[in-house]
Amino acid sequence: MTAAGGRFSDDLLSEFGEAALARCGAAPSAAAIVVGCLLESDRRGVHSHGLIRLRSYVVQARAGEIAASAEPRIVHEHGPTSLVDGRFAFGAVTGVFAMDDAIERALEFGVGVTAVRNGTHFGSAACYSLRAARRSLIGIAATNTPAAMAPWGGAEARLGNNPVSVAGPTPGGAPFVLDIAQSVVSRGQVKLTQLAGLPIPDTWALDADGKPTTDPLAALEGALLPMAGHKGSGLALAVELLTGALAGAGLSPRMVNTGLTGRRRNSTAATPERGVGHVFVAIDPDRFAGRELFRSRMGDLVAAVRATTPAEGFSEVLVPGEPEHRAEELAASEGVALPAESVEELRVLATEEGLFFPAPSA
Amino acid sequence: MTAAGGRFSDDLLSEFGEAALARCGAAPSAAAIVVGCLLESDRRGVHSHGLIRLRSYVVQARAGEIAASAEPRIVHEHGPTSLVDGRFAFGAVTGVFAMDDAIERALEFGVGVTAVRNGTHFGSAACYSLRAARRSLIGIAATNTPAAMAPWGGAEARLGNNPVSVAGPTPGGAPFVLDIAQSVVSRGQVKLTQLAGLPIPDTWALDADGKPTTDPLAALEGALLPMAGHKGSGLALAVELLTGALAGAGLSPRMVNTGLTGRRRNSTAATPERGVGHVFVAIDPDRFAGRELFRSRMGDLVAAVRATTPAEGFSEVLVPGEPEHRAEELAASEGVALPAESVEELRVLATEEGLFFPAPSA
Repeated sequence: MTAAGGRFSDDLLSEFGEAALARCGAAPSAAAIVVGCLLESDRRGVHSHGLIRLRSYVVQARAGEIAASAEPRIVHEHGPTSLVDGRFAFGAVTGVFAMDDAIERALEFGVGVTAVRNGTHFGSAACYSLRAARRSLIGIAATNTPAAMAPWGGAEARLGNNPVSVAGPTPGGAPFVLDIAQSVVSRGQVKLTQLAGLPIPDTWALDADGKPTTDPLAALEGALLPMAGHKGSGLALAVELLTGALAGAGLSPRMVNTGLTGRRRNSTAATPERGVGHVFVAIDPDRFAGRELFRSRMGDLVAAVRATTPAEGFSEVLVPGEPEHRAEELAASEGVALPAESVEELRVLATEEGLFFPAPSA
Repeated sequence: MTAAGGRFSDDLLSEFGEAALARCGAAPSAAAIVVGCLLESDRRGVHSHGLIRLRSYVVQARAGEIAASAEPRIVHEHGPTSLVDGRFAFGAVTGVFAMDDAIERALEFGVGVTAVRNGTHFGSAACYSLRAARRSLIGIAATNTPAAMAPWGGAEARLGNNPVSVAGPTPGGAPFVLDIAQSVVSRGQVKLTQLAGLPIPDTWALDADGKPTTDPLAALEGALLPMAGHKGSGLALAVELLTGALAGAGLSPRMVNTGLTGRRRNSTAATPERGVGHVFVAIDPDRFAGRELFRSRMGDLVAAVRATTPAEGFSEVLVPGEPEHRAEELAASEGVALPAESVEELRVLATEEGLFFPAPSA
């Protein structure tokens, strides 16, 4: 009895999500922020970081791995910089708090850098970088994660698949927003291939013995491979430097995966570390080219990319953020699309929490 | 009559390089900075950005594309931010000026961001990020470049192969330093394959008709492909946003390649734009984790990566910057290694400028 995907009412999904988080101790304001970030990802078609994560948050809150009623606080601050203690609050609560802190500093000083320790899973990095873009700033958001990827030349998982997002305003409707992790493909992609009963290319992952594998199940027990070899490996480490090390937080190789979707891995530390590190940066173009020139340069850039002759198999060339913006517009007019996997996970959550999960609107 | 590679005296190479730059109007201090950056790349084994570039700088200076006697200046500054006009000075002169400006701001404010317009080729981005790491700061350096790479889904060159470098101090001898561009391989790699008479994999580049090619010559007339498809393409655009757009400088799709090593491409602008954009960022860990905790976290990170079981075909797992650090130590004790291509280019330059090029010391 597999659930079917469909389009759902934005309001009903919000209500459901907020009710589920209330059950595990989240204040209404915190629940609204967390559900807001997850739902935004679904609206943008990024379902891997959408409501499908909600159940794991509830389970982690009940297990005490997320402190449902905690609020992040500033440890110390000096002009354009600050360090935030996330206190294991919901990741989105801390992420929004810290990004908005960086934004306020950028509006005053031209740049703001806020590092976070004791963080938890914050969902999609674009949720934060976009907050800066909407204020006419450049936004950067990044986090480390428990190890899931082999370093270049390595046979076992030691690196986080540390995502980074960069966003900025454009003169058109869709802000520029890049949001990528550093592996060839995500664990989610490997799982979907496994569910489809297909083999994976041997360039995606290593098995538990450190050998390239075409078996998705063996890959899930092993390590993802970094994109572009030493480049993806190096980028993951650069993000680690700017998050785990800069914030004095847990380091990817020393943490264990506590999410429902990751298996528990051995950490390289005798006592596994807790609390990922994030960094949020906002930059005000007004202190550099000036907002007008910056926007017009962004317009020229987007226009030049879009005017590129498409390669065989492509009908158009888009800028990062455009496909997601189109999905968002469709979600606004026709309801939020959820794939079958998300619906199934939300129905399980509804049953566990004694809640009613809405029927699709279309 | 092909030149042979070999090891050369560091001092004699410096003298030669500075004499060549003096011939085209560089002041002694500027020549020392430019040669210092190029020579550092050769010491670090990064010969693609070493003295092999010197002749193209001399030719560009004689052609007026580089303003040999120009000095960069600050257009405006506010606390942690500044905008620098590179005035088409030698790229390394502007790069060192602007990175040091960002470093001074970081030491005062915790973070410094310096954007540059009217820039020229600045060599290896690591030359600048390392200046911050040597001061116990995190350093980031990036630049845009004239278009050489197809965007994801595109059939023609529109994106710069925009390099970015991130460096930071570690407790050991070798600082962490990542320095990567966004294509699968560099144009230099394609050229070397062509010189060796070999085909290239069809994943490296497109020909002039926008089709994947195994012919290196056809690839050089076409466009490089971004690493990891949409990821490398998106990263190139993110760097463009932080350099060309932020500084209000020339944009990759609108500039023409003026270096000796790139062919002159059509620009998408009616009047091609001049002057690349750079960004330099320095961050003081003292305002976040604190310098001691940051360094110890970096030590933990490096140790965990180095302790990774090597994959088949690898004898050890290294952190970005370690191979280059080893090359640097060897250069200090045994002289600077130069490959045959570099020696040949420097001998041509010597003949053109009536200078004596030293014999190898080993």
